[in-house]
Amino acid sequence: MTLTSSPPAAANHTDRVHRALDAALPTGALVTGAASVERYSHDEAEWAPYALPLAVVRPQTAEQVQAVVRVCLEHGVPVVPRGAGTGLSGGANALAGSVVVSLEAMDAVLEIYPLERYAVVQPGVVNAHLRAVAAEQGLWYPPDPASAPWSTIGGNVATNAGGVCCVKYGVTGDYVLGLQVVTGTGELVRVGRRTAKGVTGYDLTALLVGSEGTLGVVTEVTVRLRPARPAEQTVVGYFDSLVAAGEAVAAVTRSGVTPSALELLDQQCLRAVDDWKNLGLSTDAAVILLARVDAPGAAGDAEAEAVRACFAAAGATWAARSEDEEEAEALFSARRLAYPALERLGPVLTEDVCVPLRAVPTMLARVEEVAARHDVRIANLAHAGDGNLHPLLVTPPGDEAARLRAQAAFEEIHAAAIALGGTVTGEHGVGLLKRGGLEAETEPAVVEMYRAVRRALDPHGILNPGKVVV
Amino acid sequence: MTLTSSPPAAANHTDRVHRALDAALPTGALVTGAASVERYSHDEAEWAPYALPLAVVRPQTAEQVQAVVRVCLEHGVPVVPRGAGTGLSGGANALAGSVVVSLEAMDAVLEIYPLERYAVVQPGVVNAHLRAVAAEQGLWYPPDPASAPWSTIGGNVATNAGGVCCVKYGVTGDYVLGLQVVTGTGELVRVGRRTAKGVTGYDLTALLVGSEGTLGVVTEVTVRLRPARPAEQTVVGYFDSLVAAGEAVAAVTRSGVTPSALELLDQQCLRAVDDWKNLGLSTDAAVILLARVDAPGAAGDAEAEAVRACFAAAGATWAARSEDEEEAEALFSARRLAYPALERLGPVLTEDVCVPLRAVPTMLARVEEVAARHDVRIANLAHAGDGNLHPLLVTPPGDEAARLRAQAAFEEIHAAAIALGGTVTGEHGVGLLKRGGLEAETEPAVVEMYRAVRRALDPHGILNPGKVVV
Repeated sequence: MTLTSSPPAAANHTDRVHRALDAALPTGALVTGAASVERYSHDEAEWAPYALPLAVVRPQTAEQVQAVVRVCLEHGVPVVPRGAGTGLSGGANALAGSVVVSLEAMDAVLEIYPLERYAVVQPGVVNAHLRAVAAEQGLWYPPDPASAPWSTIGGNVATNAGGVCCVKYGVTGDYVLGLQVVTGTGELVRVGRRTAKGVTGYDLTALLVGSEGTLGVVTEVTVRLRPARPAEQTVVGYFDSLVAAGEAVAAVTRSGVTPSALELLDQQCLRAVDDWKNLGLSTDAAVILLARVDAPGAAGDAEAEAVRACFAAAGATWAARSEDEEEAEALFSARRLAYPALERLGPVLTEDVCVPLRAVPTMLARVEEVAARHDVRIANLAHAGDGNLHPLLVTPPGDEAARLRAQAAFEEIHAAAIALGGTVTGEHGVGLLKRGGLEAETEPAVVEMYRAVRRALDPHGILNPGKVVV
Repeated sequence: MTLTSSPPAAANHTDRVHRALDAALPTGALVTGAASVERYSHDEAEWAPYALPLAVVRPQTAEQVQAVVRVCLEHGVPVVPRGAGTGLSGGANALAGSVVVSLEAMDAVLEIYPLERYAVVQPGVVNAHLRAVAAEQGLWYPPDPASAPWSTIGGNVATNAGGVCCVKYGVTGDYVLGLQVVTGTGELVRVGRRTAKGVTGYDLTALLVGSEGTLGVVTEVTVRLRPARPAEQTVVGYFDSLVAAGEAVAAVTRSGVTPSALELLDQQCLRAVDDWKNLGLSTDAAVILLARVDAPGAAGDAEAEAVRACFAAAGATWAARSEDEEEAEALFSARRLAYPALERLGPVLTEDVCVPLRAVPTMLARVEEVAARHDVRIANLAHAGDGNLHPLLVTPPGDEAARLRAQAAFEEIHAAAIALGGTVTGEHGVGLLKRGGLEAETEPAVVEMYRAVRRALDPHGILNPGKVVV
């Protein structure tokens, strides 16, 4: 017992944590300046709450991450891990009094094993960089979220990010063989494997993927790679309604062809991109479907023709295999740029519902109905082949009434997806924005299992508290 | 407090559990006859310990499984789930005083959704039956363990079973979208999803796959299906040494071709099968590699030729594309029948090590060295394209000294695999036989994480205690 048994003043607490972090880190890795701290205090989720953290750290090694977590354990300070901050659910948003651990300085591709087709990378490696380095060796890292030019592998792992090619090649988790993590008790461990198969013990790797920093801080990722694939062919279809496009998607799936991309963009997305980037896009169609196929040689030609025929049979006003690679690239660029293009018009609340394919036309009709009823501008973007829809709720800047209407519409779209057997988040994660959705979607006994697992692996409750499940 | 505070006599305890189970189950679902109970008390793992359970139950519905687990919870009785009993690690072996829950009566394919390409099945469905039912709809369930004609999907899920086509198409876990399970607290819940993507909450489905009945009893499985694939082509290579065959495997991988099967059998396997089944196999070669490729059309021809060229360049004494489908089938039958054929010669202890591909030739050399040093007959069978080797240690019936030598060799092969960066179990599971191997392979802090997760989901310790990790 000491004489001063009253709680320490907040300033003293902050000073002590700063000193302990400073002692654990190399010069420059502790960031406490107000402007910098603000910059690291949230991701790109619109209207998700955040507060200023007590500090930001930019460790350069796994051991430094471990030292930071141990300081936080000792001082009872929450740890908020962060990649590039491109998340759309608030998973990286800071809590008051927390320490944000930015992994961006740990950005090395450590090893590539061409024979076994895997790479070992630090979490701050940007997705597109890994893809480029793999390509130099004739290999391919498939997961391709729209944020690929900026988002990091660590962030992709934290959210189990999807992308365009998942319809054929799966999501981030399908490519994570193993992880090095700092645990909630401050241990630095490796889970998973580097062999093609392995079933020793529980699959903690899969448990950690998509856990949004609540079960461990990822300090290294071993990713599976594939051989480089044949060139893709593109098929474009124009439709005069969302529902007709939804039916074309079902027809493609029924045909037995698995496209390597099957994306939907509506006119609002196309116009927003064209107004911004002048890509010379045709913006006449109400909805465009963009498909790609990548079977080799003549089989690829047959797949492309099958997709075109499906589009035509479902009532496309125009459907053709793209002979013009530049045009095809422009259309896929429009897909990637739609989100930032719409953000130029005002805050964008991003849905990420995923429904069974048979429910895609119904779900698209519900979105239109919700938009009309709440008088909310909703642009539609979708990984249509996966049933993963991104209705984008655009509100005029500063219009508080519109914001409230958009938030009501957002919740209603969640409810509609759940009612159709779907989920509130296909690939963006729960973070803060989908916490209510998680509870609505999930049996209470399963939520209790989440809590039990979380308590087991983070017994002191310091890993990204308040996110995913509370 | 009652007057009789001393522990109940064992007979009374057994009677009470029998009565409670009987009340919870339909007529005939409780099995207590000595011969039947013995039959259900172990799997096919050689020399793994087992004891007689207190009872065997054969429930017909998930609710009956739940009722059984609740009875066991109330009476503090361990629950040992069981599929077809084809396991090779002792995961389904009974403990004294346990209740074996055989899921074999729950054998219905409940639904198939061709558009979304998934099926919902009960755990007792035999793998080959699911494959046949899917094929009727132009769909394909890829995981194909050698036990496919007998083993159940529930058992495949419990062990995360592999097979021949995993080298291209992945293992059981890659096809499990969702599960219904009875938890360690007696809840009946669904985890996972029926959508193509979904990241709401932690991936409990992946955690449960491969958990060998220690985290929940699986009562329903939702499996992903693929479209039926093009016909496969077969390439056969004969080699005069294990090491030369190992080099051919590396050459195939380096070529960029991903075969749909790449299996290795040595002369001992071929002779054992041919002596038994008279398939007319050529048994001259020291080692045979069996490859299949399944790219469509001309691309398939190119793949087959590339594999043949790799075999030839690595020093095959003979390498050819099989023009004779009957011969190709006979060779793959030999692959499937090797294990039972060798069992005719005496007890077979089955290894399941998996090493990085670059270590395959070294690992095969180590196996030969261990066999010679311990004077143990070891036949070699391998999913060579995955680096997943099944050295089969055959001992003369009743030869106790040979048994002890085989067990010493078994442990040494584990150690060699770990030293080469591999794992003690690629696809058979830990069960009882690889528990020591798990501890040898895994960092203590990770074993502690396994224990923490297990305690979280099975707080009363009734789910298959003593298996995987204790």
